[in-house]
Amino acid sequence: MSYTSKLIEEAVNEIATLPGIGKKTALRLALFLLKNNPEHTERLANSLRRLRSQIQYCRQCHNIADAAVCSICANPHRDSGIICVVENLQDVIAIENTAQYKGKYHVLGGLISPIEGVGPEQLHIEHLLQRAQTEQLQEIIFALSTTIEGDTTTFYITKKLKDFPIKLSSIARGVAVGTELEYTDEMTLARSIKERIVYH
Amino acid sequence: MSYTSKLIEEAVNEIATLPGIGKKTALRLALFLLKNNPEHTERLANSLRRLRSQIQYCRQCHNIADAAVCSICANPHRDSGIICVVENLQDVIAIENTAQYKGKYHVLGGLISPIEGVGPEQLHIEHLLQRAQTEQLQEIIFALSTTIEGDTTTFYITKKLKDFPIKLSSIARGVAVGTELEYTDEMTLARSIKERIVYH
Repeated sequence: MSYTSKLIEEAVNEIATLPGIGKKTALRLALFLLKNNPEHTERLANSLRRLRSQIQYCRQCHNIADAAVCSICANPHRDSGIICVVENLQDVIAIENTAQYKGKYHVLGGLISPIEGVGPEQLHIEHLLQRAQTEQLQEIIFALSTTIEGDTTTFYITKKLKDFPIKLSSIARGVAVGTELEYTDEMTLARSIKERIVYH
Repeated sequence: MSYTSKLIEEAVNEIATLPGIGKKTALRLALFLLKNNPEHTERLANSLRRLRSQIQYCRQCHNIADAAVCSICANPHRDSGIICVVENLQDVIAIENTAQYKGKYHVLGGLISPIEGVGPEQLHIEHLLQRAQTEQLQEIIFALSTTIEGDTTTFYITKKLKDFPIKLSSIARGVAVGTELEYTDEMTLARSIKERIVYH
């Protein structure tokens, strides 16, 4: 591509380093910024810079935070007796959007994966065990993906926690809401029968 | 969406102002930047800021430029006897990528569109007529889209230029390379027959 301008070439190359954005899209975005007023670009650039430089990780749950402790851990109205164990920040946001969960979180920062060489020590598991000892917990809910990595991680942690007087649970696995039975894979269907909900 | 962090919420909202990028994608990009090292975000933010603050528009052809005159107009090896009239910057880049054109350009900055209330005076047409008078031009090639707006604009300018001793031409309209005749629309096919190339 010959952009006839070093400035735009630079910008396009930088924008194209973002995931899922190719040179063509990057160019479209750059030209969009050029059409718009300079303040818009200023705001965008500043917010990115601020995000990267000022963001912190909650020292209690490892969620992203604007302070040393995240807004969820700092919230006195949340039940500190329950911890929901998730893989990453997106999962926290996803669960928060359901507005169904009122406890605290613990972000592992990944899943145990021998293939990718991720061991328990690279994750915030040790800290979770500390929390189990120090905090007055009634329950720990595991909300990890139903993959080999997810199940391995859940298994590893639950084994470590089995001697604690804490209820251990996992989010329900079953047929997704709105999907038809005939299109559900056997594994899911089998699990949804095994872990059926008893009405009466 | 509850992001549990003002910083990330701000960033997501800013990124989502870009065309074709929704909140979900914006969040993915923001978290990608967080995973990456701070320098990466710095480079991105700076390149955007530099682009917007330092970019200029060539006073000869209205193409984007790093200086008062763009790299094409400043290039002594380009034929200054030919001007290719295009709608916008993307078109310049597209034509440059063919490496077939060695003349100069004139960027109109849009097309005449009564519906959108864009008249000749909003475009760089007057300046093109000046160039036709002052510069020693042999030919002006019109490379505008085959739309009502494009054809209107071409018609308007060619009428203004008809008394100049300058050859006026338009890029060829016809069946696109690699497409099968049966799938080509009648208009295009009709035009490709009317404007057929004579071999012998």
